[in-house]
Amino acid sequence: MTATEPKISRFPVPDLADMPDDVRARILAVQEKSGFIPNVFLVLAHRPDEFRAFFAYHDALMEKPSGLSKAEREMIVVATSNLNQCQYCVVAHGAILRIRAKNPLIADQVAVNYRKADLTPRQKAMLDFAVKVSQAAHLVGDDDLDALKAHGFTEEDAWDIAGVAAFFALSNRMANVTGMRPNDEFYKLGRG
Amino acid sequence: MTATEPKISRFPVPDLADMPDDVRARILAVQEKSGFIPNVFLVLAHRPDEFRAFFAYHDALMEKPSGLSKAEREMIVVATSNLNQCQYCVVAHGAILRIRAKNPLIADQVAVNYRKADLTPRQKAMLDFAVKVSQAAHLVGDDDLDALKAHGFTEEDAWDIAGVAAFFALSNRMANVTGMRPNDEFYKLGRG
Amino acid sequence: MTATEPKISRFPVPDLADMPDDVRARILAVQEKSGFIPNVFLVLAHRPDEFRAFFAYHDALMEKPSGLSKAEREMIVVATSNLNQCQYCVVAHGAILRIRAKNPLIADQVAVNYRKADLTPRQKAMLDFAVKVSQAAHLVGDDDLDALKAHGFTEEDAWDIAGVAAFFALSNRMANVTGMRPNDEFYKLGRG
Amino acid sequence: MTATEPKISRFPVPDLADMPDDVRARILAVQEKSGFIPNVFLVLAHRPDEFRAFFAYHDALMEKPSGLSKAEREMIVVATSNLNQCQYCVVAHGAILRIRAKNPLIADQVAVNYRKADLTPRQKAMLDFAVKVSQAAHLVGDDDLDALKAHGFTEEDAWDIAGVAAFFALSNRMANVTGMRPNDEFYKLGRG
Amino acid sequence: MTATEPKISRFPVPDLADMPDDVRARILAVQEKSGFIPNVFLVLAHRPDEFRAFFAYHDALMEKPSGLSKAEREMIVVATSNLNQCQYCVVAHGAILRIRAKNPLIADQVAVNYRKADLTPRQKAMLDFAVKVSQAAHLVGDDDLDALKAHGFTEEDAWDIAGVAAFFALSNRMANVTGMRPNDEFYKLGRG
Amino acid sequence: MTATEPKISRFPVPDLADMPDDVRARILAVQEKSGFIPNVFLVLAHRPDEFRAFFAYHDALMEKPSGLSKAEREMIVVATSNLNQCQYCVVAHGAILRIRAKNPLIADQVAVNYRKADLTPRQKAMLDFAVKVSQAAHLVGDDDLDALKAHGFTEEDAWDIAGVAAFFALSNRMANVTGMRPNDEFYKLGRG
Repeated sequence: MTATEPKISRFPVPDLADMPDDVRARILAVQEKSGFIPNVFLVLAHRPDEFRAFFAYHDALMEKPSGLSKAEREMIVVATSNLNQCQYCVVAHGAILRIRAKNPLIADQVAVNYRKADLTPRQKAMLDFAVKVSQAAHLVGDDDLDALKAHGFTEEDAWDIAGVAAFFALSNRMANVTGMRPNDEFYKLGRG
Repeated sequence: MTATEPKISRFPVPDLADMPDDVRARILAVQEKSGFIPNVFLVLAHRPDEFRAFFAYHDALMEKPSGLSKAEREMIVVATSNLNQCQYCVVAHGAILRIRAKNPLIADQVAVNYRKADLTPRQKAMLDFAVKVSQAAHLVGDDDLDALKAHGFTEEDAWDIAGVAAFFALSNRMANVTGMRPNDEFYKLGRG
Repeated sequence: MTATEPKISRFPVPDLADMPDDVRARILAVQEKSGFIPNVFLVLAHRPDEFRAFFAYHDALMEKPSGLSKAEREMIVVATSNLNQCQYCVVAHGAILRIRAKNPLIADQVAVNYRKADLTPRQKAMLDFAVKVSQAAHLVGDDDLDALKAHGFTEEDAWDIAGVAAFFALSNRMANVTGMRPNDEFYKLGRG
Repeated sequence: MTATEPKISRFPVPDLADMPDDVRARILAVQEKSGFIPNVFLVLAHRPDEFRAFFAYHDALMEKPSGLSKAEREMIVVATSNLNQCQYCVVAHGAILRIRAKNPLIADQVAVNYRKADLTPRQKAMLDFAVKVSQAAHLVGDDDLDALKAHGFTEEDAWDIAGVAAFFALSNRMANVTGMRPNDEFYKLGRG
Repeated sequence: MTATEPKISRFPVPDLADMPDDVRARILAVQEKSGFIPNVFLVLAHRPDEFRAFFAYHDALMEKPSGLSKAEREMIVVATSNLNQCQYCVVAHGAILRIRAKNPLIADQVAVNYRKADLTPRQKAMLDFAVKVSQAAHLVGDDDLDALKAHGFTEEDAWDIAGVAAFFALSNRMANVTGMRPNDEFYKLGRG
Repeated sequence: MTATEPKISRFPVPDLADMPDDVRARILAVQEKSGFIPNVFLVLAHRPDEFRAFFAYHDALMEKPSGLSKAEREMIVVATSNLNQCQYCVVAHGAILRIRAKNPLIADQVAVNYRKADLTPRQKAMLDFAVKVSQAAHLVGDDDLDALKAHGFTEEDAWDIAGVAAFFALSNRMANVTGMRPNDEFYKLGRG
């Protein structure tokens, strides 16, 4: 990184060469697939053990088969992250949402106010629950799960929604505390 | 508008042909300049007198000479509108901000968390004040104006910041109540 | 203004003689009708273009024929302005409400807690909606309009309620930022 | 009370004849002094033991010698009660404040936003503390007491401020739950 | 008190010998019954008149016959006091709740989140209402009383719930302002 | 589990025999060390991949060498979890905190209001930051890190505090959504 590049973290960012092999390997694989290294990988590599757990958790929720499509899971990330004012998560996962949903408008709509977005009633019910988990999980009760079931969600889907909202409650906080900077590449991705 | 186009308002939207001449003339002028009619014009045309006052107020704040650049005024719109979860204002004024600042990244940065955006300390102080006016104007005191002065803002600049934040407090509420839909064109504008 | 009179604004207040003719004419007309010049006119005259737009907007909402009586529109102003802790608007529009409703008690009741005021269920439903527009417009949905319709309000009435609540969202913020002082005359008006 | 008089409580209100002697005696004494019976006495008389404790507590704070004038203690009541949206307390104690301060404007100013009221800096510091006790007492620390001392308040004054704010935290809640109605007489008292 | 004992109040604490006889007598009676003097007695004895009114009010609510068991009344104290972050009240009344309910787990459950506690639906409805009185009494309406009645609570029970929640709104604030320290004895009481 | 035992989760809880070997092995190791199986292990075992990532993350923060003692890290858990009304985390980590700090009082003090707890100023500064990360991470700035440094915390310590607060933001939400029940054993542990 040259002196004129913007900082991507308030904390030290390791060089690829200094990272543990598995951490570097994961990062190089992402770079090969995406064409650039999303800064979350570099910023969290400062703590290899947390890095490993973070991405293992991420993959367990975001990559696995689910009653929620991958695009729907990204909707949860985008809606809850904007309420938490997490720049990195809204910008980076907004890009992923546009790509996964093949819809150049959806990310900005969902970020600002999902109630007015081009979503199905089922998807809005999903986000109602996700936002409740993110903002007031202590109020979650059986009636919330019943409301999801009325839209065809299973018990496992409910866990998935909660899991994504909860994981990004963590992620949003780490991104805000580290001052994690979204890569410039994300802003334009998937805008068609 | 064909039956399959998405609704742009919860309320009736007049045809151009049925609008008062001055309202239609303003709309056609915007269309000629922008290449499309931003929906705020069509939605508010339902009420011509409010339409005229709304845009007169808008222009009095956003078009006049000021110690704030036009881009800076758009920053105020974008930052306060996202806190109010106003989809139309964030998407439409985000586009204008990108164009006026000639910066494809700035709108998303400012919308989600201006504290982490690529702004000068002076611009962050401007937005600190704007957000206070938008969210807790009852707490504004002389010390807030002193803080602005320490960044080189004049008394007139302080009024301008407050005026923009206050006007969009109105605008955000009307957009949210009418369910005003951002035009598809806005999402991609100014992304370079 | 003599040195001992209390300040009515944090910002400069123009002399009548220095105002544009139309601004001065409007102010003199109000003075003739009311017997005094409400300070909002003097404070906003610092910015003639904003002054013109402000009062045009005000009149478009507050003076026009509507399914809401003029007293009901003032109830919206008083209830939402107290939640925004806007001294000028509560005191000045409280006086107007007492006069228009010919009820010396109603303004204080509505200001502090309209749920306990001497109002009809229809008026309380109106204020439920107005307060939601004022405090959480991003949550407004079709069900809110349905609730109004159940009380006999039309779609146009719903716009009127929202318009008044939104306009005073602006007005409250400007009054709080300018430190606009209610005229002494307002406090006693309409107390019977 | 005739059938057409408005309800003063959601709960049963005893007749004077049915009250314990000491409760009735206190009420008659107030009536003789004030010319009417403030409804708080009638509403709380439903529970004689609570009535006795309530007014003993009230008098211990509001009637005793203090570094705070009686008008200043009423300012605390009015400012905190409006934030709690307690109609009875704002209207009734607003009247008492006007009388004790011999100022027809002060109650409405303090109720809506004491920061803009015609008060001394010392009185505003008093209300800053009172509002903190009322709204966020868990955050009170030694620095709050130091801030009071810088304005000349003693430790005993600090207790008095806190005591009044705390007692009306109770009183506001009982008035809101019982739906306690302010007597019509209060609205006009002390308006000069 | 020796120099090394922790402070129990930010304010002066009188010696037993210097207290009025009735105050000292009440304290000695409590000490005889409990084996120690709960600090609330010592801290509030700084103000004998307030002390007397405080405990008279307390007893009028907490000791009298009621449709609520004594344990249920303590549940209200514990649930609302934790939301107010009042250390003294949660710790001291948590102990009393454990003893009265003969349940070593119940106090911690109710303090943190009564919705997940081992309670009956009726008790949860009681706490829903108590928390509303404590946090948002201005919103209480007839529907809240109807909800209580659906669980078998009478009108008098509703007053009792509100009374306890309101009294501890006062108590929590005084404990937080005085920095009232819970006695070490409370932590272990009733843990079986 | 017999029919009369209380539910520990809203979701299915696997039998030990049906768990993957590594998950079961971890659980048996905990059981051997603690004498019982904390319910968080059983509840999360419903999702083995998330289970593995959760405990890897937990250990990376809570078990590693740090400028924060293990007791201090538990203070962060307890203080932030009570604000999130997470019964499981307050009860379970309260027990661990008592044990690690060898202090039977500290957990309840920290849970309800750490500002009044028997802590050093450095520990209170740690919790000020942790609570900000938990409740308003979007506001974290360089000044927060400077405040920590003034108390002798390093940059790495700041990450540790943030990491624990962020991880339990996730954990609190999962515990609240699953209705995770604290084991009865926790309530009494470490009470001396």
